Amino acid sequence: MSPPAGLVNHQVRLAARPGGLPTAANWQFTEEPVAEPPDGGVLVRVLALSLDPAMRGWMNEGRSYIPPVGLGEVMRAGGVGVVVASKTPAFAVGDRVSGTPGVQEYWTVTPDEVKRSGLVKIDTRLGTPSQWLNVLGMPGMTAYFGLKEVGRPKAGETLVVSGAAGAVGQTVGQLAKILGLRAVGIAGGPAKCEWVVNELGFDACIDYKQPAPAGVTRWDAVREGLKQHCPNGIDIYFDNVGGDILDAALARIRRGARIVICGAISQYNNEGGAIAGPKNYLSLLVNRARMEGMVVFDYAARYPEAIAELAGHLRQGRLKSREDVVTGGVHAFPAALLELFNGGNFGKLVLEVARE
Amino acid sequence: MSPPAGLVNHQVRLAARPGGLPTAANWQFTEEPVAEPPDGGVLVRVLALSLDPAMRGWMNEGRSYIPPVGLGEVMRAGGVGVVVASKTPAFAVGDRVSGTPGVQEYWTVTPDEVKRSGLVKIDTRLGTPSQWLNVLGMPGMTAYFGLKEVGRPKAGETLVVSGAAGAVGQTVGQLAKILGLRAVGIAGGPAKCEWVVNELGFDACIDYKQPAPAGVTRWDAVREGLKQHCPNGIDIYFDNVGGDILDAALARIRRGARIVICGAISQYNNEGGAIAGPKNYLSLLVNRARMEGMVVFDYAARYPEAIAELAGHLRQGRLKSREDVVTGGVHAFPAALLELFNGGNFGKLVLEVARE
Repeated sequence: MSPPAGLVNHQVRLAARPGGLPTAANWQFTEEPVAEPPDGGVLVRVLALSLDPAMRGWMNEGRSYIPPVGLGEVMRAGGVGVVVASKTPAFAVGDRVSGTPGVQEYWTVTPDEVKRSGLVKIDTRLGTPSQWLNVLGMPGMTAYFGLKEVGRPKAGETLVVSGAAGAVGQTVGQLAKILGLRAVGIAGGPAKCEWVVNELGFDACIDYKQPAPAGVTRWDAVREGLKQHCPNGIDIYFDNVGGDILDAALARIRRGARIVICGAISQYNNEGGAIAGPKNYLSLLVNRARMEGMVVFDYAARYPEAIAELAGHLRQGRLKSREDVVTGGVHAFPAALLELFNGGNFGKLVLEVARE
Repeated sequence: MSPPAGLVNHQVRLAARPGGLPTAANWQFTEEPVAEPPDGGVLVRVLALSLDPAMRGWMNEGRSYIPPVGLGEVMRAGGVGVVVASKTPAFAVGDRVSGTPGVQEYWTVTPDEVKRSGLVKIDTRLGTPSQWLNVLGMPGMTAYFGLKEVGRPKAGETLVVSGAAGAVGQTVGQLAKILGLRAVGIAGGPAKCEWVVNELGFDACIDYKQPAPAGVTRWDAVREGLKQHCPNGIDIYFDNVGGDILDAALARIRRGARIVICGAISQYNNEGGAIAGPKNYLSLLVNRARMEGMVVFDYAARYPEAIAELAGHLRQGRLKSREDVVTGGVHAFPAALLELFNGGNFGKLVLEVARE
């Protein structure tokens, strides 16, 4: 089937590489007519895009776990959509799909991408499209494999997760509770902390934005909170933020602790790209502990296993999810992205591109 | 048997905690008459003491993997000696032994220490007393278990070790070669680097003290050396030094790399105790790598296995050792310790306390 004629695809492209926080100068808005997909390809109408801290890294030049977005290219973004034209028997019009459409309204999926499983069908009975970008999508996969494979949780242990109200953190803490661990979150602001404890069932949540008592820094207060809520120390620290919070956690780890390095959102927009290294890293030595990085794509072959388990927890009400859905289509992308870095979002940040 | 009457024990005690590098003000020289050991105890005449970077940490206040040396106490030190009086059937006069005598000439070993295996017999046919403080002692044990248990080496991989001419580094690199790895050292000065390559058989050694070409720092030069000598990247980095060299190594690790955190000698004397954290730690994420601390005492039950293997390698000439023996007895201790921190020693630094 072919797409209706006269359709226009609005896009957001990377115009220049940012030094610190991205500004309007880094983006270019373009539009193109929507064309028929090639033989073996698919045309997807994008419904929602995922806004991820990792996007900031993709905007930088240089080697990382995936190549940077090229200047002039459509900004990379994961998303969900609906098939509106198909030239392959693998997909039918109306299929709900997930992949990496980029920040645009229509995604022409090449036969090569179809072959490389760059496009997968999603079952919207298991979760909403937004949940497919959250707990059933990359953040959920990251939480699941980061916790289970790198964190190696054991019932009775104490887990701490930063960015606890964020996309990855919310699922990390809930999974830890399901596995019989004590779960302590770190998040910014009382509303997030209350939600993490009262709705998600974490044992405690430390508000890193809370004004510190006189004479101590905010990070001393975080450290004090960790002392209070992790009386036996930290067995697993799942780090999404880096910086001072990572140092506070390092100061409280137990012997044999595992630190999962998932991200470092506090450091991504440092001017000149300099990163603050963890000053307390020698705590790894004293405590015979390890710090290990993970990239979710390595577990792609096992996503179905994780989706099945997480969807089961969702269905049974043991796992909750929260998405912060921004409307306004692709033109709202630049402003929405900044929300991630000032902690303005509450839950997984999703950009609604079109309604069904 | 009893010790000869009238013997005097000269000692070095911790008088004050240092801020940066230890100075004369941190030490107090004392002397005591040598007494008979208690029932169940042993009196040891100290022959040689081990000078270790870890000593600097033991001088600080505060929690670590072992308690700090108390003010006024004899400075902690590992060493070897000969039994001169014994009130236990477990040891006979003339036995060569190893333990933690502290910086003094005579060590009265309590029955409790004897029971807790704080004193072990050594077989001087397997190695000289100095070698029992080096490759057959703590540094050798650290190299053996740090490399095998934390580094998890596989033939064909590339290992980099800092402090390559030092006590731990020399054995780490040679063991790596025996196990079929490529071994690249980092050491200070051409003499050490030449020895590491020509005598120990490392594949290469980078001189971190070599003046860098115009326009780049010394650490850029180290990084360039790692690029040249580790064309496929680093699989195992065994770190004894921390600081800029750790960052240079992090910048060159391969996917799945293991970083063994054994020490951070470049950081131990920072004023105020501040440690420079590894700015490149996010390389752990990009490369799905891990950084793990180790403390050799955890492997105490397995020392015999390591000693047997290392002594075998020594006997067969596959493993060499070098000790830098300082004479002058316990009074030479304060100056000798500083050699460690300015890199003045060449090989395992040993203080000769008495000759047999």
